[in-house]
Amino acid sequence: MAEKFPGNDVEGLRRLVRQVPVGHLAFVDKGNPRVLPIAIAAQDDDPPTILLHGSTGSHWLRLVATGIPVSLAVTAVDGLVVARSAFESSIHYRSAVMFGSCTPVIPEAREAVLELLTDALIPGRVAEIRRPHQRELAATLVLRMTIEEWSWKVSDGWPDDPADDVAGPAWAGVLPATVRYEQALDSPDLASGIEIPPSVARLLGSDG
Amino acid sequence: MAEKFPGNDVEGLRRLVRQVPVGHLAFVDKGNPRVLPIAIAAQDDDPPTILLHGSTGSHWLRLVATGIPVSLAVTAVDGLVVARSAFESSIHYRSAVMFGSCTPVIPEAREAVLELLTDALIPGRVAEIRRPHQRELAATLVLRMTIEEWSWKVSDGWPDDPADDVAGPAWAGVLPATVRYEQALDSPDLASGIEIPPSVARLLGSDG
Repeated sequence: MAEKFPGNDVEGLRRLVRQVPVGHLAFVDKGNPRVLPIAIAAQDDDPPTILLHGSTGSHWLRLVATGIPVSLAVTAVDGLVVARSAFESSIHYRSAVMFGSCTPVIPEAREAVLELLTDALIPGRVAEIRRPHQRELAATLVLRMTIEEWSWKVSDGWPDDPADDVAGPAWAGVLPATVRYEQALDSPDLASGIEIPPSVARLLGSDG
Repeated sequence: MAEKFPGNDVEGLRRLVRQVPVGHLAFVDKGNPRVLPIAIAAQDDDPPTILLHGSTGSHWLRLVATGIPVSLAVTAVDGLVVARSAFESSIHYRSAVMFGSCTPVIPEAREAVLELLTDALIPGRVAEIRRPHQRELAATLVLRMTIEEWSWKVSDGWPDDPADDVAGPAWAGVLPATVRYEQALDSPDLASGIEIPPSVARLLGSDG
C-alpha cells in the first residue's frame, strides 16, 4: 500500500512519544550494532530534544553518555491492513527514526528532567508523590539526546488491491489496534483506605 | 530439550514475537548506527530463526542482506508500575535483544516463508487468499536472521517501595496494558455481501 511521506511531523512525533513511552536506541559497540529498549520523553522544542534515563550501573547507558552516535526509533503499531493478497497486506504504523548523540544532564537539572519523564509516563503523578532523595538522583543517569536528523513515516491507508483482486471473493479492510489501561491493581502492600489518585484515574480507559 | 542459551525463555520469545509483530533492527552504516522498525516472525527452532521481509527497493534491507552484523530487539510494553516514588515507578515489559546476521531466502523457498510471515500476522489468512504472483515474489526481499546470541528480560513485579514510603499516603499499584483489535473496518471498495473471514473474526477481541 502507498506510504505517506508528509514531511516530518513534529507534533506527530510528540504525540507518538506520549503514546509510546519506550523507544529503541541503537549504537555501535566495538564495531557491532546493539539496540536496546529505553523509556523516553520528548521536550517541546523542534526537533524535540529526547530525554532518556536509566541506572548509573548500566554499562550501555554510560557508553551512550560519552556522546557516541546513536539512532533512536519510536514506533506505534496502529492496526492491520488486511488486503486481498499477502503482498498488499501490511501494518498501519507511525514511525520516527532519529539520529544524533546524547549528553548527560548536569546534576542541578536532573530532578527537573526526571519530573518531566515521570509526568510523561503518568501525567500529573509528580504532584502526588514525594521529591526524589539525593541518593536516588545520584543513582540515575539522565541523558538528553539532540536530534541532528530524523525521518517520519506514517502508514494509515486502506488496502490498495489491483482491480482483478477487488473483483474477487476475498474480504479486505483494516483492523485498528487499541492500547488501553483497563484496570488499576492495588499493590499487595497498599494500606487500606488509599484510593486511586487522579493521575491513575485519568489513564484508565484512555488510549493516550 | 536442552536450551542453547540457559535462562533465556525460548517459548517466551516466540509468544512475544506472535504478539508484537514489529521488531527494531539495528546495523552499522559507514560507522554509524541505524535502527529501523520491521515486521518479523519466528520459526520453531531454538533459538528461533527470525524471518524478515521488505521491498527489494529498500536500500537498507539490501545492505542487511549482505550479512553484516545486526541486532534485533522485540519489546512488549505490558503495563505501568506506579510506585510511591518516581524512582521506583517503571514499566512492565518483555524484551528480547538478539545478535546475528541475515541471509536472503532462496527464490524457491520464498513463497513458503512469506506464507509463514502472513500467517504470523493474521493466523489462517494464507488459506483464504490467492497465491502470490511471480512479480510479487520477485519484488519481495525475504531474509532469515540466525541468532548467535540473545538476551531475555522480563519486568512483571509489584512496586518495590521502601518501608517509609509504604507507610506514607501515596497509592501504589500496576496498570496492565491491553492491546486489542476491536473492530474490522470494511475497505471502501469491498463488494457487498463479502463477510469478514474466519482469520479476521478470530483476531477481533483477542489480545494475542
